Amino acid sequence: MSDKRLGTQTIKLENPPSIVATASIVGPKEGQGPLKLYFDEIIEDELWGEKSWEKAESKLMRETLAKILSKAGKSPGEINYIIAGDLLNQCIAANFGLRESEIPFLGIFGACSTIGEAMGIGAMLIDGGFADHVVSITSSHFCSAEKQFRFPLELGSQRPPTAQWTVTGAGGVLLSKQGTGPYITHVTIGKIVDLGIKDSNNMGAAMAPAAADTILRHFKDTGLSPDSYDLILTGDLGSLGKRICAEMLEAQGYPILDHYNDCGLMIFDREKQDPHSGGSGCGCSATAFAGFVYAEMTKGSLKNVLFVPTGALLSPTSTQQGESIPCIAHAVSISTSISS
Amino acid sequence: MSDKRLGTQTIKLENPPSIVATASIVGPKEGQGPLKLYFDEIIEDELWGEKSWEKAESKLMRETLAKILSKAGKSPGEINYIIAGDLLNQCIAANFGLRESEIPFLGIFGACSTIGEAMGIGAMLIDGGFADHVVSITSSHFCSAEKQFRFPLELGSQRPPTAQWTVTGAGGVLLSKQGTGPYITHVTIGKIVDLGIKDSNNMGAAMAPAAADTILRHFKDTGLSPDSYDLILTGDLGSLGKRICAEMLEAQGYPILDHYNDCGLMIFDREKQDPHSGGSGCGCSATAFAGFVYAEMTKGSLKNVLFVPTGALLSPTSTQQGESIPCIAHAVSISTSISS
Repeated sequence: MSDKRLGTQTIKLENPPSIVATASIVGPKEGQGPLKLYFDEIIEDELWGEKSWEKAESKLMRETLAKILSKAGKSPGEINYIIAGDLLNQCIAANFGLRESEIPFLGIFGACSTIGEAMGIGAMLIDGGFADHVVSITSSHFCSAEKQFRFPLELGSQRPPTAQWTVTGAGGVLLSKQGTGPYITHVTIGKIVDLGIKDSNNMGAAMAPAAADTILRHFKDTGLSPDSYDLILTGDLGSLGKRICAEMLEAQGYPILDHYNDCGLMIFDREKQDPHSGGSGCGCSATAFAGFVYAEMTKGSLKNVLFVPTGALLSPTSTQQGESIPCIAHAVSISTSISS
Repeated sequence: MSDKRLGTQTIKLENPPSIVATASIVGPKEGQGPLKLYFDEIIEDELWGEKSWEKAESKLMRETLAKILSKAGKSPGEINYIIAGDLLNQCIAANFGLRESEIPFLGIFGACSTIGEAMGIGAMLIDGGFADHVVSITSSHFCSAEKQFRFPLELGSQRPPTAQWTVTGAGGVLLSKQGTGPYITHVTIGKIVDLGIKDSNNMGAAMAPAAADTILRHFKDTGLSPDSYDLILTGDLGSLGKRICAEMLEAQGYPILDHYNDCGLMIFDREKQDPHSGGSGCGCSATAFAGFVYAEMTKGSLKNVLFVPTGALLSPTSTQQGESIPCIAHAVSISTSISS
């Protein structure tokens, strides 16, 4: 077994890749939320000049890639791979949004965990000597997601309190072999966990055990503890899922609450914006990371972050067929210093 | 730039991983086709004892994984990653079929190119020192695909002559660091190519330029030629797409017809089984490879194979919105000897 592997599920990157640029574009509601100053662009309406929500979501992908390249001063030809995914059937936001990029393309699907998977694979491809530059990018869109997963918006359906609000936005990162950090130091790829929850309006509770499983495995594999991190940031468990995740880890001897937050709780103001249990979607953790986390790490106010995007791997068909919800979480450990 | 990279898109694996086991399970129609003797199991009907086609497709995934592990004498705990995907919305065949595997999971989506992407990423993760054993597996199912992408079977809709027949089946491989071959020697990850074809009943013509682009890039990057291979095997271009792909490559100075076949044309008898333009689906190239190609390589009757699964990255929504069809192909070069 290579010494790049720690324990059963964690990779310790030999030459930790740097996150050299990020970009985020969000919708109007996200642009009124607590993280609004961190985003690169806030679109004025959910269609953004396009004829459909799906086309608008593809445009979010396309323009976020353009911003990443522009910030880093890179041309598409310098990027070895783009790793991307979204929530739409057959991942059309990524496939159509990035089809003109001329960059070798790896499509992935991990529901709302997708940005974690994309960063994890990207970091390994660079550390393994297969790439110098990789872009990882994901998106979601409130309107295209509601239409596909729940009800047409025009029905005005009432949402239960445990429901989450799909973020309209795309976020992405450029990972490079050379750079001055923040560095990706470890990656813990999760297993699918399904404890039998069937309520697709309570995905936070369904995803929490997967997040706890991956975080626990990360600590056990690396010997690190909650105190090793300034911030442990799950993807989008929302208020209920966050509590369950923290309780599960505390029961295993890893109290994380002093350092713990959830992207789904950070992106909206729960008092003023009524997102119910919190934000969700592939764009939630991607924009929170590309906006807030990256800015705070480059300023130095966050030094060590464990970023744990979480995904509920269901579809409307599986729910209609009475299935429970398989979930997954991937952990990416990021540090401003590689001596730590 | 690492010397693992050749040209702009190709990886030359430093320590080529071995394909140490494969498995394939197919539906009744595939089990009457020309490759029938190569499959491990032929199910008696499309439901295979399950209550829905989607659950039957998940079972194809689950049982194919079980067969791979059993043939290789491996336990799930010895597998570092499973890389999997399918055609269903949110990839539920993979997510539900593999949820009990307890193996770290990377979900991917490349439509019918998925097995090529899965083998390519798997080979890089092993060569990079991140894994000793990776399972790559994909599936499709005629009934679940028709229901989702076209019309309910009960309507008895007529299909145009350019339409393809989605294969019912799952195929997978176990890639290992140690082994005696066949070896994955090169991987060429494709770009998305969209030349503007909008007819979702003519995906072979849409995918052919993507296949030609990747094969051309593979030859240019490696310096290899069509004569370097006993078999160049595209995924599922069907009869029309195969002709277009060969013509495009010939026009570039690479005549491939002497060594060229297409999984979509091999899996069904076009005279007797009427699959129209040929087979398709994530399970088409996966079962053709896991069945036919692997057997012929281990027997020594095929020595050098360029396996090029092709994918049409559309959805019914994108088609209804008037979009053309973005396509992709990934090439995996496999050899029985690593001195070649």
